Parts: sequence; structure tokens; C-alpha cells
Amino acid sequence: MDPRIEEHAKILVEWSTEVKPGDNVIINATPEAHELVVALYKEIAKAGGRVITLMTSEEALRAFYTNASDETLKIVPEHMKAVTEKCDVFISLRSPVNTRGLTNVDNKKIMLDSKTQQEIQAMRLSKRWSLTVHPCQTLAQEANMSLEEYRDFVYGATLIDWAEESKMMYVMKEHLENHKDIRYIGPETDLYASTEGRIWVASDGKHNMPSGEVFTAPVDDSVEGKIYFDIPFLQQGKVIEGVRLTFEKGEVVDFSAEKEEATLKSIIEIDEGSRRLGEMAIGTNRGIKQYTLNMLFDEKIGDTIHCALGRAYKDCNGVNESAVHVDMIKSMLNGEIYAGDELIYSKGKYFYEM
Amino acid sequence: MDPRIEEHAKILVEWSTEVKPGDNVIINATPEAHELVVALYKEIAKAGGRVITLMTSEEALRAFYTNASDETLKIVPEHMKAVTEKCDVFISLRSPVNTRGLTNVDNKKIMLDSKTQQEIQAMRLSKRWSLTVHPCQTLAQEANMSLEEYRDFVYGATLIDWAEESKMMYVMKEHLENHKDIRYIGPETDLYASTEGRIWVASDGKHNMPSGEVFTAPVDDSVEGKIYFDIPFLQQGKVIEGVRLTFEKGEVVDFSAEKEEATLKSIIEIDEGSRRLGEMAIGTNRGIKQYTLNMLFDEKIGDTIHCALGRAYKDCNGVNESAVHVDMIKSMLNGEIYAGDELIYSKGKYFYEM
Repeated sequence: MDPRIEEHAKILVEWSTEVKPGDNVIINATPEAHELVVALYKEIAKAGGRVITLMTSEEALRAFYTNASDETLKIVPEHMKAVTEKCDVFISLRSPVNTRGLTNVDNKKIMLDSKTQQEIQAMRLSKRWSLTVHPCQTLAQEANMSLEEYRDFVYGATLIDWAEESKMMYVMKEHLENHKDIRYIGPETDLYASTEGRIWVASDGKHNMPSGEVFTAPVDDSVEGKIYFDIPFLQQGKVIEGVRLTFEKGEVVDFSAEKEEATLKSIIEIDEGSRRLGEMAIGTNRGIKQYTLNMLFDEKIGDTIHCALGRAYKDCNGVNESAVHVDMIKSMLNGEIYAGDELIYSKGKYFYEM
Repeated sequence: MDPRIEEHAKILVEWSTEVKPGDNVIINATPEAHELVVALYKEIAKAGGRVITLMTSEEALRAFYTNASDETLKIVPEHMKAVTEKCDVFISLRSPVNTRGLTNVDNKKIMLDSKTQQEIQAMRLSKRWSLTVHPCQTLAQEANMSLEEYRDFVYGATLIDWAEESKMMYVMKEHLENHKDIRYIGPETDLYASTEGRIWVASDGKHNMPSGEVFTAPVDDSVEGKIYFDIPFLQQGKVIEGVRLTFEKGEVVDFSAEKEEATLKSIIEIDEGSRRLGEMAIGTNRGIKQYTLNMLFDEKIGDTIHCALGRAYKDCNGVNESAVHVDMIKSMLNGEIYAGDELIYSKGKYFYEM
């Protein structure tokens, strides 16, 4: 086995979810993630946990959604509820059999099932949980890489000393919380928001693997100015590029995109909340050196910021509600970030590196 | 998808486990069985059930067993217990990633875990359950076939009109229960046993897929005579061939094997119960035309009988106890079976074909 798979498993068990004797662990995986499942069984056994694996795949879900009646999709799966209730740790491995396997499924079916399982999902998020990917051909293909290159990419981002890495993120969180606002400055960009009463969360390798961001929810009507997002992102199967947004009193008042502007428009117009920012964040993971159209990685790229239109996180004391949460990313290598009067970041250096 | 996979799924859902609206279904599968899992999701959705899949593999189990302490293996996995409690239907798909994946694991570890999970296993058997295989390269290889040939073999044995097929098995059960004993006659064979007070069970496509046998537990001290088993079978990784047994008052008093006699000896000497027969049965599945060293299939071959040394089934009112249950098979194409004075089978014909 590639020793990096074993190291990945070790990080997930020891750092991310801190498995201890007697823990009931659930792994959620596709057949493509089998090798990481094997490595996890070893680490979980060593930690004294008991483990079962739930298998999912886009093909299986598609078969279910396209053949189940609405009535069936409204039935709470009691066995799924029971197993979730009894678990202490939930480790989810993304490793799609086919990243487009659900593309043509009626979205209403997926939403209906998602609503039925809302309580189960909330229960899952109340446990120690972690989400990661296991490198496979389908994800490599999405990232325009060979599998070998994609493995180097994923392990470069994840096999990090997270204890050390997260120290800096907590220092940054503290600095940001000592101020009442945030400001991004750069080419075609000057965006201001109040962060008063909000919490900055350090993504420290627990819930997301890789991690590497510090994020908050801006005060809803406080966002003012303009911003240019120069990193492409994937939404509704479309790659949107070169987004420019202008905000007044927290709302988007002008927008454009160099590619897929119609898709951007449809996102902004989904509901009241999708016109406002639900998240403002700073990416800190220097192990991620390029975007791959996979938000789990892209939003963590070092020397970037990102903002999300739509739903805010409760962890941040955020209140904005929306059916969507759409992240957009900007390189800051030519930019600056201020919190109040403090320079937090300037052209390739965080304050603790200056 | 091979339409036979869809038909296989249909039989498992409609006939074997009779999934109905609101049923909580668990599939137990390895990554190799993914296609059958997809087909099952379709059929379960159509039947109105909710389904989750538990993934296992020999590699993952080996990683767990070889790294878990005895203390860990004594902890009841509460999440596994909870999900089993809440399930209505359990469908187990054998499709090994590697049939020898557990060969070198300390058997004490496996036994210890098995003991810890005894209550869960009993719970599982109290549900509607079915066990089948999904054809894969590893099983084809074990059977000395290519995958294409093995698929033909498996579907020839399973894609049968089980309603029709089981009628004959129930007729046979009734005939056998109208008598108080059973007698196998053939080359080097004349074996008698009392079946008084015992139940003959018809394997009708519910718990085993394929099915195709009628079996009971003989009265323990009543077995008399000798028998020659001419079909090889696999035990402890060894292929045992040409077994001859002689019984007096229910116990083996003489034995020999043309190959692996030492292994046969070790089985007979395991405990008190392994010297006695726990099962006597008649195989009826003419869709299975050759042995493949897989007992799920071999014991069902049409025009055969089999006997098992060791543990008897409670369903049959059997009482013999043992750590083992070792089936041995004999072709009856040159033989006869009597129940009392009734000729049940003679040289290629069951009584209902005579």
C-alpha cells in the first residue's frame, strides 16, 4: 500500500476524529475508496474503536431516486437513524464512482430525500466528524490530472503537521476577533464588512481534510464595495470565471462574469439570501498550489480569500438564510487584508510572516 | 447492465425477502458486488423500501483483526447492534475481494469477535434474510472458470421460477415427513437413519440463493451403515476427496479419504458432536451441473445427497452440538433413496418424475 494512504488514515483517526477505546465509528465510502477503508480499519483497531462502513455510490443512489415514489422518499429510514444515533465518530470519504452519476436525476427527488433525512444529518454533524477525499481516477480526471499527479496533489495538501499548522490559524482567529471589521484590497477590489459579534472559525484539520482557512459570517447589511474573483469555480455543472460583484448595504447591486454570467445571475436570484454574503474567509493551506474545481481544496488554497453568496454558518453566529452557499475565490498575491487598522496579510505574507 | 443481474435482484427482493413498503433493508456487500447493489437499489425502491449498504472486505477485516486487542474485540459494536435491531430485511452478497484474504489471520481473533457479535448474528437470523453470491473474478477463479463461464453457472442456478421449483420441494418434504426414517443406497453405500420427530426443511429460495435441497437432522444414535462421498469438498483450505465413513449407533467407527485423510481425521476428532451426523439432505437443483468447491452451490446440485458431520439445525428439531458443520456430497445417479418403504429417488428420477 502507498504509505501515504496509511499516513492519511492515521491523521483522520488520531487528529481529525480522535478515536478512543470503545468508540463506535462509521465510515461512509464508495467502492473506489476501499484502500483507505482498509488503512482506516488498521488505525481504528489500534485506537480501540469498533467500525462499520456504509457504502454509497452515485449509481446506486441514481437507481434509488429514479425508481422511488415521493411517498417512499418521505419515509424516514429508521435503520439509518438508529446507526447514526449510536455512532461517536463519522468519517466520510469522497471518492466518486462517477462525478456526474447524479447529473440527470430530478433534483426534486434528491431534495425530498434530503429533507426526510434532515434530522439524521443534524445528528451526524453533532458527532465528531470528518470529510476527506480518497484520490481516484474520477477525481483526477475532474482535476485535469493523471492519478499519480492527483495523488501528489491530495497528499501534498493533507499530510501536514496539523497541530503545528492550526496554531497559526488560531493566532489569526484571535487577531481577527480583536477587530470589528474586515477589508479585502487588491486589483479591482475593495470590499468592506463588519464582523461585530461574529465568530471567526479556524478550520484546523478536524472536520475538513484538507483544512486551512479561517472563516466568519459578515454582518448582513454591512458589506460595501467591489470584488473581482479570479479563480474559476464549478456550479450546476458549469465552470464560472472572472466574477465581479458590487455590494451596497450588504446586497449585490451589480455583477458580471467573464464566463457563464447567466449561471451567476440564476444563483444571485435564487432567493433573498443569495444576494448577500454568508461567508468571508482567508485560505491558508500552502500545500494546495492550484485549483481543481473541487471546493474542499480550492477554498483552502494559501494566499487566497473567498466569499460565499447565501447561507451563513451558525458556528460563526451567522444568520443569513438561503437554499444555496456558493463559494468564490480570489488570489491575494497582489492584495492586502485589513482587520480594523491591523494589516493581516500583504502580498504573499500573513502578519505572522512579516 | 447484464439483464441477468437485474433478474437476480428482482428474485432477491420479490421472492426471497418479499420487500414491502416501509421496510428497512440492509445489504451486506464487498466493493466487488457494486453492480448487484445498484440493481437491488432499483428493485427495493420499486418495492417501497429504504436501503443502506454495509461494506465489508477480507482486506479490511484482516487489517482490523490483526491490529485489534482482545479487549477491543470483546466490545459489542453498539452501532451494528442498533442498525440490525431496526432492520426488517438483510441481504448478504458474497463476492470476495480475495477468497484467501483471511487465511493467515489468527483464528482466535475471528472466533472472539464472532462470540462478541453472537447476539447480533442471532438478531439478523430472526429477520427476513437471504444469502447469495455476485459473480466476480475471485469466485470464478476458485471455481476454475473464466468470469463469463462462472456467470453462466451462477445464473443457471439462481434464475429459476422459485414458486414452481419450491412446490416440488414441499411435496418431497411432505412425503419424507410421512415416514420415520431415511436410507441412501448406492455404490459402496447403504446408510440408514431414523428421522422420527424431526422436521424436513425445504430450501425454497428464501434464505439461500440458489436454493434446492430438502434437509433434516437424523436422530443422533440411529445412524447405521456406510457411505462413499464421491464429490470433493473444501475444508480448512484443503480439498478432501473420496471420503468413506462407517457408522454404528450414530457414531463414526471407521473412515478413510482418498485425499487429505489427515484433515478428515482432524475434523472427526474435533469434539463429541463432530463424530455424528447433524444433517442428512437431498439436493434438487438441476441448474447446478458441476461442483465448484463452494458449498452454497455444491450441496444443492440435483441428483445428489449430502450429509454433514457436526452441528444440527434447530429448524429441523436437531440437537447435535459441535463447533463444526462439515457437508459432504454424493452423486445419486447410480443410487436410490428410501423413506420407510417408499422409493423417493431412483437413478436420476425423483418420485414425482417416475
